[in-house]
Amino acid sequence: MTKRTTLFHTVAEPLALDGGQTLSPYTLAYQTWGTLNADRSNAILIFHALSGDSHLAGDHEDGRTGWWDLMVGPGRAFDTDRYFIICANVLGGCKGSTGPSSINPVTGRPYAMDFPVITLHDMVRAQRPLLAVVGPSMGGMLALAFVQLYPEMTGRAVVLACAHANHAQAIAWNKIGRRAIMNDPLWRDGNYYDAPEGPPKRGLAVARMIGHVTYISEGAMDRKFGRTLQAADKESYSFGVDYSVESYLAYQGGIFHQRFDANSYLYITRAIDYFDFSAPTAGDLTAAFAQTRARYRFFSYDADWLYSPERNEAMALAALAAGREAVHHKIHAPLGHDAFLVLKEPQTELIAQFLL
Amino acid sequence: MTKRTTLFHTVAEPLALDGGQTLSPYTLAYQTWGTLNADRSNAILIFHALSGDSHLAGDHEDGRTGWWDLMVGPGRAFDTDRYFIICANVLGGCKGSTGPSSINPVTGRPYAMDFPVITLHDMVRAQRPLLAVVGPSMGGMLALAFVQLYPEMTGRAVVLACAHANHAQAIAWNKIGRRAIMNDPLWRDGNYYDAPEGPPKRGLAVARMIGHVTYISEGAMDRKFGRTLQAADKESYSFGVDYSVESYLAYQGGIFHQRFDANSYLYITRAIDYFDFSAPTAGDLTAAFAQTRARYRFFSYDADWLYSPERNEAMALAALAAGREAVHHKIHAPLGHDAFLVLKEPQTELIAQFLL
Repeated sequence: MTKRTTLFHTVAEPLALDGGQTLSPYTLAYQTWGTLNADRSNAILIFHALSGDSHLAGDHEDGRTGWWDLMVGPGRAFDTDRYFIICANVLGGCKGSTGPSSINPVTGRPYAMDFPVITLHDMVRAQRPLLAVVGPSMGGMLALAFVQLYPEMTGRAVVLACAHANHAQAIAWNKIGRRAIMNDPLWRDGNYYDAPEGPPKRGLAVARMIGHVTYISEGAMDRKFGRTLQAADKESYSFGVDYSVESYLAYQGGIFHQRFDANSYLYITRAIDYFDFSAPTAGDLTAAFAQTRARYRFFSYDADWLYSPERNEAMALAALAAGREAVHHKIHAPLGHDAFLVLKEPQTELIAQFLL
Repeated sequence: MTKRTTLFHTVAEPLALDGGQTLSPYTLAYQTWGTLNADRSNAILIFHALSGDSHLAGDHEDGRTGWWDLMVGPGRAFDTDRYFIICANVLGGCKGSTGPSSINPVTGRPYAMDFPVITLHDMVRAQRPLLAVVGPSMGGMLALAFVQLYPEMTGRAVVLACAHANHAQAIAWNKIGRRAIMNDPLWRDGNYYDAPEGPPKRGLAVARMIGHVTYISEGAMDRKFGRTLQAADKESYSFGVDYSVESYLAYQGGIFHQRFDANSYLYITRAIDYFDFSAPTAGDLTAAFAQTRARYRFFSYDADWLYSPERNEAMALAALAAGREAVHHKIHAPLGHDAFLVLKEPQTELIAQFLL
């Protein structure tokens, strides 16, 4: 079967950003699945989470399988025989869409920290079209920003493992991760793209390690790792790797720079911090939902401690109070936040019915 | 009233460490409160948590008030009119007891990373004497190590906000904090004591920021900080401090080097990782308690997500199954782990009764 390739769409029209600057031109890296029908009514826009990209499903020519392959395909929850699915790398990202690692046309060099600080709403303004908007984690926030900015453009939103605003503890984790990156001498105020020493790998590793701990539950870490030693049969009495959980984190942290740009990590986590769906209505979440027109499905995972079931339930209740159709499905998932990446049931049937 | 001063006790006899090395001589910085009775039966040894020290209660000549002043004093939970209280800075610490910042008598320079990796049991071996042993968090682990190493020496143990072993998620946080310190170029493989640039402040700040997030609950962070902006009335569209929670963490992280040595942070967190009360009995927690003779009181705080009520309950159940007297008091404390530092009731009456 033919391998998938990433497509690119460049927009010349300047994009006015929440921070007051404009960006022009900008490119979105995207892919599509399925076929758009004649009346253009079967399109679904799926947003990725923090470190995701446009490669949603199928086998890519770069050798990777899509991050949500188990949910997107023929006969799957997002049925590509029926729907036209679009997924684009977010603005600020590092997988083909314009971001801090892209060339600034004014200087001919990477933007680095000259890239303007952007918001999730800016990311959404850069993407439009739709039957439904869909996303897990940060992707869910983008779906909410979409129905807020373009209430007339879609009738359905599927929001998974999400929150209506980034809360204090989540802001804290993002802050600490950014601090670790910016502390790394190889960060060089963001100008590391042509440095022979390469990117700030070690700072990015610390940020990624923090992320990984938040993505799985305490209980799942007990079951997966416990206090198991990685190799030797006793402690080394050193500061190297003794426990399997140390090995896992060191590995995940160590490889992240191979697929993710440290400056994109700064910009995207800052955009997540800034997200508050209720900000335009002065903190009134019900009023915020009242200004939208979509029908909602919220999914949460009971062991998710990053964006808890309670935060997803609060969105469903506010949407209902605003007169919107909304259902919150709380899924039993001992793994925690990352369940959105690996759990196929019972979401598949619930999503398929919602999209009919 | 006279200000308190720290006392020092130096032991010449070599201390045999779990890691196979010996340490000699070593000094313990300690303080006492109250008066030892004639038959030496009213002594209570209290252990401090990770970043604590011997200054438990009262006003010290250095200007600080003790870390558990609300629990220790005349008429308080640990009644100094009745009991003789001892608290020593742990081995490996940086408040007067021998640790990586101390002078190595062999070289005449600070030990730095030549200091041997130690365990909580090593810390306890360095301290003896008792009516009861007491400690919150790491201090509770030290109290458990004490009744394990010296079952004949005490009849009571009060263990607060603790776990019988450091679990995978807690190992992960410690690992990430150490990584941040060791990534800091000012760490210099531990040899920063005479460096003009000073200690690895920025790495230690990241470690401390992680710690602070684990010490309070998600809900307490919502209530204390929420998404409140620190100074301006809108977001700055930059990577500086916008939110109060960022300001709080940056401040707490930034000052920590003034009172804590980065190498001590490495050694003490590693000792916490290594702690498993059930290791001598091959993971059988009941068997581990069966080898002790103490009566137990466990205290947990319902919003503590670092050492959860469930982990404290598991200790109480195992102690009971081993035929020991044990009670677990689960306290309603929305603050989380740090409740042990600030909550006075209902522990005071419960502890006072237990010590009678």
